[in-house]
Amino acid sequence: MKLDRHAHTVHGMHHHHDWDRAHAPVLEVEPGATVAFEVQDASGGQLSPASTVADVAAIDFARVNPVTGPVFVRGARPGDVLEVEVLEFAPTRWGWTALIPGFGLLADAFPDPWLTGWDLAPGRATATFADGIEVPIAPFPGTIGVAPPEPGPHSIVPPRAWGGNLDVKHLTAGTKLYLPVAVEGALFSVGDTHAAQGDGEVAGTAIETAMEVALRFRVRRDLTLRAPAFETFGAAPGDRATPGGSFATTGVADDLMQAARDAVSAMIDRLVATTALDPAAAYALCSVAVDLKVHEVVDVPNWVVGAWLPKAVVRW
Amino acid sequence: MKLDRHAHTVHGMHHHHDWDRAHAPVLEVEPGATVAFEVQDASGGQLSPASTVADVAAIDFARVNPVTGPVFVRGARPGDVLEVEVLEFAPTRWGWTALIPGFGLLADAFPDPWLTGWDLAPGRATATFADGIEVPIAPFPGTIGVAPPEPGPHSIVPPRAWGGNLDVKHLTAGTKLYLPVAVEGALFSVGDTHAAQGDGEVAGTAIETAMEVALRFRVRRDLTLRAPAFETFGAAPGDRATPGGSFATTGVADDLMQAARDAVSAMIDRLVATTALDPAAAYALCSVAVDLKVHEVVDVPNWVVGAWLPKAVVRW
Repeated sequence: MKLDRHAHTVHGMHHHHDWDRAHAPVLEVEPGATVAFEVQDASGGQLSPASTVADVAAIDFARVNPVTGPVFVRGARPGDVLEVEVLEFAPTRWGWTALIPGFGLLADAFPDPWLTGWDLAPGRATATFADGIEVPIAPFPGTIGVAPPEPGPHSIVPPRAWGGNLDVKHLTAGTKLYLPVAVEGALFSVGDTHAAQGDGEVAGTAIETAMEVALRFRVRRDLTLRAPAFETFGAAPGDRATPGGSFATTGVADDLMQAARDAVSAMIDRLVATTALDPAAAYALCSVAVDLKVHEVVDVPNWVVGAWLPKAVVRW
Repeated sequence: MKLDRHAHTVHGMHHHHDWDRAHAPVLEVEPGATVAFEVQDASGGQLSPASTVADVAAIDFARVNPVTGPVFVRGARPGDVLEVEVLEFAPTRWGWTALIPGFGLLADAFPDPWLTGWDLAPGRATATFADGIEVPIAPFPGTIGVAPPEPGPHSIVPPRAWGGNLDVKHLTAGTKLYLPVAVEGALFSVGDTHAAQGDGEVAGTAIETAMEVALRFRVRRDLTLRAPAFETFGAAPGDRATPGGSFATTGVADDLMQAARDAVSAMIDRLVATTALDPAAAYALCSVAVDLKVHEVVDVPNWVVGAWLPKAVVRW
């Protein structure tokens, strides 16, 4: 472990592929404890620097998105809120982004597997996607949650009221996540670490990479939540509010999902028109660097979603 | 007119309440021209500092959202893109925010009319909503667009591919909006000026206020658009990426609109729990100061929408 100065450590061998209140805790801690987790990448090690698109097509979905844990936090009871303070990350040097057939906002338009690798050299603020295209690094855990109240296994893929595969890119170092506690001890697990992602994760993958992540747990009884909440405390690492501003496409439609699809399709069109990227690469870049914002949801019957790309990413 | 140094002026008496390619232009300009528009507030003058909630309930919807124009831009042809550079604003000193029965993301939960006024004193960076609650001022036009290709009148309320009631709060001074041109001369109009708004405009109104706005028009043939796009060039005025960070609630649901509703409801709950605001006032504050972001739309079947409030607004 690189993050070896924390009170507790949970190694990556202690992982599970579903949410289940019956999973036995691998660690029990007091509130206030800090824990370093070793997290596998979202493929569970099925993809490596030697992988090709054939390996993407052959992914065994039973092994995807392993989460490390669970950790039992003493005193956390149903109805409480678990505060998870994100302390620091130790990324590995390599990551991947893929288009996986059947997944993603534009799955119908992109039926073929696609894969790229990323050199995540320590100390660099950005990672290179293609010549002249640099994506700001801002590590966070894509999947972070606690055990559900209902017995039995629950798929690891969808997020739920008690967290899970939230893919909230803002859970970078220095932020706090608040999770409703459903079972005694909370039974917290974390996985699916990302080096960078756009709001929306539109193609279904981010910069996927194994990492270590250190977290601090507290039990909060002054908060009442039916779903996750979180808090930031200043500018985020890799903050994309760049001096050069952004270019945003929009989707205008009477369905928010369609508006999101239209906005992303328009951004892909613009990237293809103004860079050397082909549509699949442009879609993948949107997944790691384009942010979806809801501009209006009240001017009946049409809503507006924007897809924002910082101009610095492509030097527009 | 306060903005009297621009080449052209269109007064507020030249307005219309629908989009129609048959509206005769009130001004014809060359590309490159700058035009100052006098814009009425979204009520078309039906609300004033003396108004009460009874006046909100009595609003005549045939008179809402007047847009000033249209302006014929020489050389703009169907298939072109009209670039609209937002140059500057001259706000009036008073604005309003209302809950209008039947409108808004949470219309079912808030059936009663509600109204507040805002003192928009020149030179202040924020406007006071309640004791200790300050909303950053960032003026923009909520409705900005060109005539549709289909003949006949089209409702002013929904935005469409050629713009209109976009309510994109980011169209502040210094930004550029790109609109697909549908008819000869574009037939541009602008209205519904806002002193501040959150992404989403969740309660259906922003800080509504009459303003003058100066715009510069260019015809672009290097862009191809099926819907509006826009561009920022640095930090926005009233940029809410405050040093203190933000608090965000989330909605996790298999429908993006439901996720947006849940996120806003959770923010209202938090505001009611931690401030002196009642639910209606908290909902109105969300409309002017809370930003909706789409965190993920790919982890089937559940999506995550975040509702973000800068902590500086409520001194959290």
